[in-house]
Parts: sequence; structure tokens; C-alpha cells
Amino acid sequence: MNRFWSDAVKRSTPYVPGEQLNDPTIIKLNTNENPYPPSPKVKEAIYRALENKLNHYPTPTAENLREKIANFYHLNKENVFIGNGSDEVLAFSFMAFFLPEKKIRFPAISYSFYPVYCNLFHIPYQEVSLNKNFTLNQVDFFDSDGGVILPNPNAPTSILAELDVIKAIVENNPNRVVIIDEAYIDFAAASAVSLIDQYENLLVIQTMSKSRSLAGLRVGFAIGNPELIEALQRIKNSFNSYTIDRLALAGAEAAIEDTTYFKETTNSIIHTRNWMTAELKKRGFKVLPSATNFLFATHPSYAARSLYQQLKIEGILVRHFNKDEITQYLRISIGTDQMMEQFLEKLDTLIAEKRPLLSRHTSL
Amino acid sequence: MNRFWSDAVKRSTPYVPGEQLNDPTIIKLNTNENPYPPSPKVKEAIYRALENKLNHYPTPTAENLREKIANFYHLNKENVFIGNGSDEVLAFSFMAFFLPEKKIRFPAISYSFYPVYCNLFHIPYQEVSLNKNFTLNQVDFFDSDGGVILPNPNAPTSILAELDVIKAIVENNPNRVVIIDEAYIDFAAASAVSLIDQYENLLVIQTMSKSRSLAGLRVGFAIGNPELIEALQRIKNSFNSYTIDRLALAGAEAAIEDTTYFKETTNSIIHTRNWMTAELKKRGFKVLPSATNFLFATHPSYAARSLYQQLKIEGILVRHFNKDEITQYLRISIGTDQMMEQFLEKLDTLIAEKRPLLSRHTSL
Repeated sequence: MNRFWSDAVKRSTPYVPGEQLNDPTIIKLNTNENPYPPSPKVKEAIYRALENKLNHYPTPTAENLREKIANFYHLNKENVFIGNGSDEVLAFSFMAFFLPEKKIRFPAISYSFYPVYCNLFHIPYQEVSLNKNFTLNQVDFFDSDGGVILPNPNAPTSILAELDVIKAIVENNPNRVVIIDEAYIDFAAASAVSLIDQYENLLVIQTMSKSRSLAGLRVGFAIGNPELIEALQRIKNSFNSYTIDRLALAGAEAAIEDTTYFKETTNSIIHTRNWMTAELKKRGFKVLPSATNFLFATHPSYAARSLYQQLKIEGILVRHFNKDEITQYLRISIGTDQMMEQFLEKLDTLIAEKRPLLSRHTSL
Repeated sequence: MNRFWSDAVKRSTPYVPGEQLNDPTIIKLNTNENPYPPSPKVKEAIYRALENKLNHYPTPTAENLREKIANFYHLNKENVFIGNGSDEVLAFSFMAFFLPEKKIRFPAISYSFYPVYCNLFHIPYQEVSLNKNFTLNQVDFFDSDGGVILPNPNAPTSILAELDVIKAIVENNPNRVVIIDEAYIDFAAASAVSLIDQYENLLVIQTMSKSRSLAGLRVGFAIGNPELIEALQRIKNSFNSYTIDRLALAGAEAAIEDTTYFKETTNSIIHTRNWMTAELKKRGFKVLPSATNFLFATHPSYAARSLYQQLKIEGILVRHFNKDEITQYLRISIGTDQMMEQFLEKLDTLIAEKRPLLSRHTSL
């Protein structure tokens, strides 16, 4: 603690992102990145942008990108807000719609950045318990004092709530904003974007980091009615005029336009995911039904933390959370078929060799 | 106003950046961009980064870039914080060091984003009057309740306060953070970075948008003692884990390393600035002594707003501020010699033709 620190610094409990190791031989299945490179058109667009005045500011309004995202969803650019990754869009949304005196609600198991934002902006919150199978009870989110934020599909559980559940939650919070954080929706079914026209209290947040293979470029967006979008613009323009650089804008525009590549790579990941689910089940894992680009899995015999550690020694990085309810689970990002074959091979070796894989009981 | 807006949105008074017109024939002298492209090594570095996993997240800690900036200033990477443009660094600094109950001070004429941050974060402020020649009285900034933020050189006045003035202000606020916003320092003399080791309450903020020709990439940084930097890291990690994308990191690293190019282009701009100052004075302008890459000038006969408008019709964009004390001034960014010759040519035509150049009196 330092005497110059504000209360916001003192009470901060920073988010801990997944490990980012520099070793290129490691198979990274720990931060839900897309294993495929972005569309080749992204690189072409960035090459062109590099010829065009890097010494000049980018557009502060990102009109072109907003327009292209709006076209993708058959909406207007006034429905779209762009941010420096969906984490920035989330931060601005907490500032724009949640209040220091009203408790918001989110699932007790969900994106661990939400309580971090609440601490930073002094927003009270209630963590809503999930069922034993990690599904949610929609009524638990009705009539929230301060609003609701819900990742759908949920992370790290990978479970999707159907659109009529989302609809019921939005309808039963008519005076508060309900944010649906759809980082993984492109690996699932219908997005809540289809409800935007019906509900003025619904904000949907998406990212280009997962399904568009652009984690390295930092572009996220929100979709909602123009008055919610206007609120986000106001916060952004009171915070940082130029949040997205020229190359990221060019790359994101190209990515959103290449729908063919997007569908191909997304379908590949879904295909690999379904195959991996079956393979893990064959090995005795319980795997939650995933609507994302990752699996959430537990083994009845082996301690998850021990598996995580042994896999890491073998050069395979998955994610383990030190949180009671999910401490026996691993979150495994879906890579290419080849990456997943290597993962299975190492896993089989570990199990066959009976390496210091602690049983669930000894590890607790 | 919308019923879903938070108080932060309602009280927001967004910053208005200079016009960003798309017309490539326009000579842009309105946002203090560098007229030279970035170092050729920037492009090479970005090409290389494009080959390297755009689908993976960037480093959240930006160790390499921090190290390189630290080397440039003979400091340690623990003295350096990186942000998405210096505006983001400023926003995080307001959150980290200024308090909702203590009035901060900044010059009445300075960067117009400061009161915007104060509104957003609910920080009270006092705008300190400057002398008639726009210099500051150091004692007016002594013993501030909440802290001080001072752009040096000041914008839009272009005037530098000498290092002993900065030192006196830092020394006379021992219990509060003094932020020196040095966006333009590379066009002036000594940076306050040289004082970092002596004062634990001093934070210096710089940008790569001006002297490094990287406005299009969005990279700014803060330099201070490790405990102030730690506070900024905590805020950032409570807000957005990955603020700088892979390409911006690569470009910024290359730019900071190419000291030869940096010195050459900076010297060119200083040379052009000094020549332009003389040329404007020949034409009857009063030009403030500039330590930046722009001039702040007024003409005794012509209304500044009218000059701005007529120049715009002629395809030359300069900046005019609708603010009483400076409404008779134009802020003119320094371009290449060729750009400035075109500017002078148009200016001479306007004056010779006695086009609807309103006199100062009729315009008021």
C-alpha cells in the first residue's frame, strides 16, 4: 500500500488472465484462443493499412467497422459500439449502466472479471448459485435491483442457456439493463442479438478474439438499442477518444466480411469439439455439454490440479481454477485436430504410466 | 437522457477531438500529428509480427516494450507503464491518484480532456489562471488538496515551463501526486523524467503519437517510481487485461529503438517550426514561443475564427478553440516544409484578396 494510492487502487483485486508462455513448443489450450489463423484477408487489409498514414490518428468513431458489423446482423451502425477488446466494452458497460448503490447479479460461476469490475467501480453484486449441473434457474435473475450480467454460453462451464431463458430474464428486468456476454456465441446457436429490436434494456457484447481468430488485435463490440450505444459512446469519449488503432480497424473489418472463412473455421472447431468430447468420455471423463470452443471436464479418479500440472510438464497447457465448486474441473480449449491428438496422446501416457497423478481424495 | 443511463453517463461532457476528415487532398495541420511516417523499422517489425499468431492474445504485461522505454531513459522496466495511447494512461492515472473528495489543479488553458476525466470520475478541480502571456506562476500550484496535472509544454499554448519550475511544484506538493503530461516534450528540452529518482510523487506521461509518428497505433506510457507504476498496473488489470495489441507492441518497440530516425525527424520539425515562426511574424502574427510541434498564433487584424474558416475552404485545416481567452488564436501543427509552404501560399492569397476575412472587432 502506498500513500499516493486512491481507494480504487487499494480495493482493487486485479483479474488474473491465463498464463501466456513464450515457449512456442507449448500446446496452448488454456485461454480459448482460436487455433486457426485469421482470414487471409485480414493480413491483406493490414498490409494496405500500413501504407496509409500510421502517423495520423485513426477514426475515433469507427464508422466503417460499425457499419460492417451492423450489416452482418442486419442492423444499423447506431446499434453497434466498438471497444478495445470485449473487456473494455464490459468495463465501459459497467460504468454506463450499473450503479454504486444497486446490487447487480451474475452467476456464482462465470467470468471472473465481473467481480473485479464491481470492485473497481464500487458496484455491489450478488453471485447467484447455479444448479449442480451448472445450469441456471432463470427466476433467480428476475427483478434484479441493479441489473444482470450473464455470459452465454457461460464460461468456464461451456453451457448454453436457450434463447427463451434469456428472453424471460430480459423481460423480467424491465427497468434495468441486462447484459448478455456472448464471447463464445458463434460456437453455439442463436445469439440474443435477434432480440435487440424488442427490448430496449438488452445489451449484447461480443468479441473478435475467439470465433474471428483475432485475440492479438483487441477488438470487441456491443450491440443494443441506439440509446444504450449512445451511453457507451459518451463514456468512451470521456475516457479515450481513439481506442482502436488503424491496423486493428482494418483487420477487424476484413475479418467480419469474410463470412465463408468464419463459417469454415467455426465449423471445424465445433467438429473437433464434438470428437474431443467423445474421446474424453471414453477415458472416463465427465464432460459438460459444450456450446463453446472449450470443454469443461472432470475425471472421477484424478485430481484436476494434478492433471493440469502433469500436462504442463508435458508441454500441454490447460486451465485450472482454484475455486471450490470447480476445483475438480479442467477447462480445455479446442485446438486443431492435430493439437488435440497430441493432447490425448500425452493424457494417455500420463494415465498409463500412473505418474504422480493424485487421486481426487488425496489432493483435497 | 435515457432511464438506463448511470450518473456517470448523465454528467458526462465528452471530449471533442480535432476534425478527422477523410479527404486526402486536405493539408491537416489541426491535430498535431507528425508529418513524417514512422521509422521504416516500424513497418518491418509489424510485418514480422503479422507472421506470428494474431489468433493468440498479446502479452498482458508488455515487458519488452517497457524494457526498451526504460533503456531509452536509463531506468528500469518497473518505472514504466504502457497504455492504449496517453489518453488511456491519463484516464487510469486520474483513477489511481486523484480522489473524489479533493480538488485537483490544472491550468485554465490546457488539454481540454482534463475536466472531462474529472466529470467522469467525479473529481473536483480548480482551473488555475495563467498570466496574460500564458506562462504559469509556480506558486499557484503549490499545496494542492488533491494533486496537480500540468501539460509541459502546455497545449494549446506551446509554452514550456523550465525544469526548475516543475521541480518546485513537485516539491511543494509532497503528499499529492503531480502528473506532468509531456506529450510534446521531445520537441522541447529536458524531460521531467530526469527527476523521477528524486521524487516519489512525480508521474510523467508521454506518447508515441507525436515525436514517434505513431498516432495511428495508440501507444502511450507513464514513467514514475515503482509504487506509482504498480497502482496503474492494478487499475489496468481491473479494467482490461490486454490493452495493447500485438502489432502496436511490435511497432512501438521498433520506434523506440530507432533513435537515429527519431532525432532526425524531430530536428526537422523543430527546424520547420522555427522557420514558420519567423514567416508568420513577417506577416504580422504574434506567435508564442513554441517548444512543441505546433504554433499558437494570433493576428492583430484578422479574426482567428474567420481565418480558420477561410483556410478550411482552401483545403488547409488548422485548429480553432471556441474559448474566450484564446478565441483569437489559431493552433497550427507543423508539417513538412512543403506543407507549410502551401499553407503560407494560401494564407498570403487570403490576405491579398482581402477575402471575407472578418476583422477581430466585427467577429466578436
